[in-house]
Amino acid sequence: MAYLETVRGKIYYEIHGDGAETLLILNGIMMSSSSWGPFVETLKEHTKVVLMDFYDQGKSTYLDGPYDQTLQVEAVKDVVAFLALKNFTLLGISYGGEIAMQFAAENSECLKQLILANTTDYTDLQLKAIGDNWVHAAETCDGGKFFKATIPTIYSRAFYEAHKEWLDAREVMFSNLFKKPWYDGFMRLVVSAETHDAREVLNQISVPTLIIGADGDLITPIDRQESLSKAIKNSELVVIKDCGHASMYEKPNAFFALVIGFMKFGGKTFTI
Amino acid sequence: MAYLETVRGKIYYEIHGDGAETLLILNGIMMSSSSWGPFVETLKEHTKVVLMDFYDQGKSTYLDGPYDQTLQVEAVKDVVAFLALKNFTLLGISYGGEIAMQFAAENSECLKQLILANTTDYTDLQLKAIGDNWVHAAETCDGGKFFKATIPTIYSRAFYEAHKEWLDAREVMFSNLFKKPWYDGFMRLVVSAETHDAREVLNQISVPTLIIGADGDLITPIDRQESLSKAIKNSELVVIKDCGHASMYEKPNAFFALVIGFMKFGGKTFTI
Amino acid sequence: MAYLETVRGKIYYEIHGDGAETLLILNGIMMSSSSWGPFVETLKEHTKVVLMDFYDQGKSTYLDGPYDQTLQVEAVKDVVAFLALKNFTLLGISYGGEIAMQFAAENSECLKQLILANTTDYTDLQLKAIGDNWVHAAETCDGGKFFKATIPTIYSRAFYEAHKEWLDAREVMFSNLFKKPWYDGFMRLVVSAETHDAREVLNQISVPTLIIGADGDLITPIDRQESLSKAIKNSELVVIKDCGHASMYEKPNAFFALVIGFMKFGGKTFTI
Amino acid sequence: MAYLETVRGKIYYEIHGDGAETLLILNGIMMSSSSWGPFVETLKEHTKVVLMDFYDQGKSTYLDGPYDQTLQVEAVKDVVAFLALKNFTLLGISYGGEIAMQFAAENSECLKQLILANTTDYTDLQLKAIGDNWVHAAETCDGGKFFKATIPTIYSRAFYEAHKEWLDAREVMFSNLFKKPWYDGFMRLVVSAETHDAREVLNQISVPTLIIGADGDLITPIDRQESLSKAIKNSELVVIKDCGHASMYEKPNAFFALVIGFMKFGGKTFTI
Repeated sequence: MAYLETVRGKIYYEIHGDGAETLLILNGIMMSSSSWGPFVETLKEHTKVVLMDFYDQGKSTYLDGPYDQTLQVEAVKDVVAFLALKNFTLLGISYGGEIAMQFAAENSECLKQLILANTTDYTDLQLKAIGDNWVHAAETCDGGKFFKATIPTIYSRAFYEAHKEWLDAREVMFSNLFKKPWYDGFMRLVVSAETHDAREVLNQISVPTLIIGADGDLITPIDRQESLSKAIKNSELVVIKDCGHASMYEKPNAFFALVIGFMKFGGKTFTI
Repeated sequence: MAYLETVRGKIYYEIHGDGAETLLILNGIMMSSSSWGPFVETLKEHTKVVLMDFYDQGKSTYLDGPYDQTLQVEAVKDVVAFLALKNFTLLGISYGGEIAMQFAAENSECLKQLILANTTDYTDLQLKAIGDNWVHAAETCDGGKFFKATIPTIYSRAFYEAHKEWLDAREVMFSNLFKKPWYDGFMRLVVSAETHDAREVLNQISVPTLIIGADGDLITPIDRQESLSKAIKNSELVVIKDCGHASMYEKPNAFFALVIGFMKFGGKTFTI
Repeated sequence: MAYLETVRGKIYYEIHGDGAETLLILNGIMMSSSSWGPFVETLKEHTKVVLMDFYDQGKSTYLDGPYDQTLQVEAVKDVVAFLALKNFTLLGISYGGEIAMQFAAENSECLKQLILANTTDYTDLQLKAIGDNWVHAAETCDGGKFFKATIPTIYSRAFYEAHKEWLDAREVMFSNLFKKPWYDGFMRLVVSAETHDAREVLNQISVPTLIIGADGDLITPIDRQESLSKAIKNSELVVIKDCGHASMYEKPNAFFALVIGFMKFGGKTFTI
Repeated sequence: MAYLETVRGKIYYEIHGDGAETLLILNGIMMSSSSWGPFVETLKEHTKVVLMDFYDQGKSTYLDGPYDQTLQVEAVKDVVAFLALKNFTLLGISYGGEIAMQFAAENSECLKQLILANTTDYTDLQLKAIGDNWVHAAETCDGGKFFKATIPTIYSRAFYEAHKEWLDAREVMFSNLFKKPWYDGFMRLVVSAETHDAREVLNQISVPTLIIGADGDLITPIDRQESLSKAIKNSELVVIKDCGHASMYEKPNAFFALVIGFMKFGGKTFTI
């Protein structure tokens, strides 16, 4: 609904609701701010929601050269500064979780809480190989081929069995929606994640942190979230069962229950 | 704070807060309504909270003969009728979860949602043997012996390593607090659970249901919650990691985030 | 080393060793009898080993039209009959496991034992989607693209981190080795597996059965082997940790220890 | 069948078979060399088997004062020296695994391989609390009470459901077999394990090592074997499913398949 101008271009953002609490959400790599559309009406009953598109994503500027994730961390800093966000909850899923943990390691002071969903502490060689394959699929600029190459490992077996029609419609949507600029941006995003490694800075995260995993996540399996959980001091790890990588789509009730619930109960101290 | 008189005796209950939503909580076997004390102040910011003690528990009447769990289901029905609770969320942990699922199978119409934590669809022979051991420990009426016989499988390894002093103090508390009437009541409660088997009626539960498990739960391990999840149609299963059977004590932030979050997001339908 | 002529063409097979016991091994879909080469010398110290290539695989005849797996089950029957194998152990991995369980359901009387590794009771929609993607990758007849599209989900994260050079060399090997006839055969094999569903006949398997899974298997995750384990009466399930789908390559010591050990201890009855 | 005299007393041992390979087995804390009786006939077809009772166990000398596990490690050294065992495989389960890893850390040169089943790198506070409870149960010298206090966490739910009669008979056997000297020895064994901590020396183990876990092991859960697996360089971890702490009793076919198979395939190097 609005754009922030930066030296690099425009960053698209949306603000929903006007609660006392603020939730800033960072997208996964194939997503955009519009991916959260189905949930915004319910979310804004409980919190102000800020959505944003990374560079090369959604309605933000598509960039030229290769870059690494520090550029996207800067984008988050720019939005936070521009909107003067303070004491807010930062939620990132997958790629957005990678950016979120990097942001949190350097900017804990402006955060109230951190929520990391279906993400990883670093890009290991298997994940890099998965990314390489996604790039090869994107190079075809063919929605059907791209869908077939990426989606089978993103959704869980249970979701495939239950939502075949939705997935078939999704494949058609991919073909209609994604054009060359989108694929080019997607490839730059994938490449920017290749060097992600937050292992040395995770101990700088001091805010209460909820880590969400899913037992059927093939892209960032639970052992990656277990590593995050061990490295982040004040963290708790919860696993959604019968759920794949896109947990907020597969199990929205459990996912947003955790998000909204943790905004209210995370970091509380109880004397038992 | 108040008592309900029934044909069998008194049922103690407490009401906290006055929100539009209502959460009725059913205790585990070693607990009482006072076990929720540390959390009530925070909980009541988000919902009206109703606590109650089962017969043979806390401030409710201690009964005489042996009985099975239908008597405790009746106690819940009596409280629900007396307080005219409608469209409320029912949360039960462990023994309380067993009663909650039996209540829900027959009384879905008065429920908005159901939350089952660290509980089981039936008492298998290993769980019965654990119960037998608890009875033998209770027969000594010796707090130290009772503590040593029951607690090591209730709390997780992680909790033991982190909270040794609290556990040592807890052992002293057991000796001071628990007297013969308590142990007699405890034994009757254990015996009443021996014949628990809800497997035939779980498919009658129609309200949105959240099932909470814990990866270090030795009493009701995750495979019991997986069975519940398969049998209850409209359910989602979430597992708290590095956590034992008394999940609300070990990981209160994650536990109550799930409870309060599910009260707000459970059962919503989203068109993705 | 030899060929069996059938009405459909030639089936290539090898016999190694001359022990009293016989182990017949069925390949995964990207494998051939030569994949077992590194292990044959050690295996034949303990058992006679019979290897074979399915139609459309290795040195067996490449067929024309589409077919389903019953044709490959016939190939196994032909080899068993021709070599007069009796009271032997049948080991199948992945696709070979699918054929093995179908063979065993109808021919338990000629088997001593069955070993099913990294396989599934049926092709669910997610696995079918993975297969579709493999077909699309094979259509390019480009070894590099085929490697990138298939291998990241076949080997585990631990294997990727430890064997980068081997995997890089493997990618070169794919380009050199695989030509259009191979890709055509591969695609027919994938299509033949699409309709695999042994769920109705697994209860006919009466011989002692060992089921091997791997915790990092993304193609046929552990829950598929758990289903096999529940459906096959006389079975035991063992999971190799830190291991992906190609378990015999990733953890050969554990894999063949299980195979050879089970040939000696499987099905024994002990009075404890 | 024979005794070795030491400065501390007698160590009972048995030798079965005369194969080229040797397997030395160390017992769990409630076991003795006779616990392996049902399996010896089959085992000796494949390897020479050496059994021994620790001090305070079976037919070995019952000692006086408290001691730690170094005394039992000495007992193993004495047996190894007396029988001039070289290049042998050492298998330890539970308590026996603790002794085995301590022995292996200092005596890798005489070992060919090491197998650690259902054991732990150190006695954490929860395990210590379980041990305390066992001591309290042993103090009663009452077989029924001792059985009820210890067995429910030793056998798995699946085993309980399938072997109720065997377990009932076992309870009677406990009452008939165990007398005060046995209970006194058992308590000393438990106390000796309280200070077990091999975490600093596990990196000294250089022989090929197989680690066996069980998914239903409540005494030494899988995360303990995962720690062992990370700390021992040349190790592989395999998990037996639907199995509790006494894995060699619950799943003897899988257990001994792993043992005998690993004696033949462990430590082999294959060029794939």
